[in-house]
Amino acid sequence: MVKKLLSSQNSYLKKVAKLKTRKYREEFGLFLVEGLRACREVVSSDFLVESVIMTEEFFDTHGQDFQSLSCIVTTDAILAWLCDTKTPQGVLAVVHLPKACTMEKNRYIYCDCIQDPGNAGTIIRSADAFGFDGVIFSCGSVDVFSPKVIRATMGSVFHIDVMTEANVALLTKAKQAGFFVTASALHGASVDVQSMTRKNKQIFVVGNEGNGVSDAVLSLSDEIVHIPMQGAAESLNAGVAASILMYEVLRHE
Amino acid sequence: MVKKLLSSQNSYLKKVAKLKTRKYREEFGLFLVEGLRACREVVSSDFLVESVIMTEEFFDTHGQDFQSLSCIVTTDAILAWLCDTKTPQGVLAVVHLPKACTMEKNRYIYCDCIQDPGNAGTIIRSADAFGFDGVIFSCGSVDVFSPKVIRATMGSVFHIDVMTEANVALLTKAKQAGFFVTASALHGASVDVQSMTRKNKQIFVVGNEGNGVSDAVLSLSDEIVHIPMQGAAESLNAGVAASILMYEVLRHE
Repeated sequence: MVKKLLSSQNSYLKKVAKLKTRKYREEFGLFLVEGLRACREVVSSDFLVESVIMTEEFFDTHGQDFQSLSCIVTTDAILAWLCDTKTPQGVLAVVHLPKACTMEKNRYIYCDCIQDPGNAGTIIRSADAFGFDGVIFSCGSVDVFSPKVIRATMGSVFHIDVMTEANVALLTKAKQAGFFVTASALHGASVDVQSMTRKNKQIFVVGNEGNGVSDAVLSLSDEIVHIPMQGAAESLNAGVAASILMYEVLRHE
Repeated sequence: MVKKLLSSQNSYLKKVAKLKTRKYREEFGLFLVEGLRACREVVSSDFLVESVIMTEEFFDTHGQDFQSLSCIVTTDAILAWLCDTKTPQGVLAVVHLPKACTMEKNRYIYCDCIQDPGNAGTIIRSADAFGFDGVIFSCGSVDVFSPKVIRATMGSVFHIDVMTEANVALLTKAKQAGFFVTASALHGASVDVQSMTRKNKQIFVVGNEGNGVSDAVLSLSDEIVHIPMQGAAESLNAGVAASILMYEVLRHE
């Protein structure tokens, strides 16, 4: 089904434009996916796509890829207005936010107040690459469904489970359900990441860019691990630290 | 020495404002360092600081830290204009670009057309954390002395050697001088990073975000390694891949 919407005053397009802010994403339960590759990935994933908005030129070259969906053809200027990227590729999907996932699988990474969109996206991408089942974001983390995070995941957000608005209560419940909780810290009397305890059901916690893992989460963790360093750097980038932790988990299976 | 410059028409301040663009950084041989922590680091490093520009409030609280240098006190509005960050911390250092470093040490990472400022900064930060001697950027890479890259290094740019504008000729010369060149690639008939050859003098090459290591560099490499993955992600973030490579080098010494 193809519809032409050529006015920026159109009520549906105005609603879509609002999805650039977290408030309206949460209110409408929708988010935006930009670019050909990411749109192809979301369409073939379990996510529910409400519509695909594209320029005339895009429709002529790639329209057939999306013909089973509700397609909207619009002007280049309107597409640019709806997109977060400066050089949009002529296509944008409007997608329903996923249902809250349940922790029925075995291996998760928990992001305790990760703030940077690039770090959040990188962690989801690495979790996918290293065979994790899902990524859990605490309350106070960046909005995972912002265009910047979606872009930084390079499609991985459509491959693995992502849970948001988590907290200490969720971790406590997970422990009762048999999960072993491993937190990462910078220094101190913690275990070298290469010698960490490995369990069948395990949650790995990484902390905020400036402050690390919160005391409340550290105090319920079963083990605290660190990545050994030398040189004068005080710490690693949060996305890098999380990725090395996940790499080590995969390496030593 | 303290000077007050309160007009945005002042010729020195106008020159400093131009340092936000690569063209003028290269023309004047200067770059900018923002924030208290980074300014403290650059002042105690081998870099040559031309001036430190600060607000009145910053001068009152931290001015004594910089009293041996040429200090300029200005208005909040002018400092905000000179800074790249939205919430400047009231201080900015004008610093001479380093002299081209010579490869007299043993272990370097070579960035082949890294484009993203966050990735470039992360690689410098991880190189510092994992005990590398320096980071080499090829022609066509992002400007390492842009405010975004400097910020992402978290001070590590002041701890280790950074070389720019490198090319295949430099790598060829390095090989003649005894360096072993190890390039990273995504897949193919390459060696698992855990089994890679380790040498006393070694250069590790990481590639561009979209295209990986260029053919010219691959063809002169002594060994090609990859980081094993599973899951549906096609690749890792470039900063993460470089960091895992460096982590493995440190782990197996």
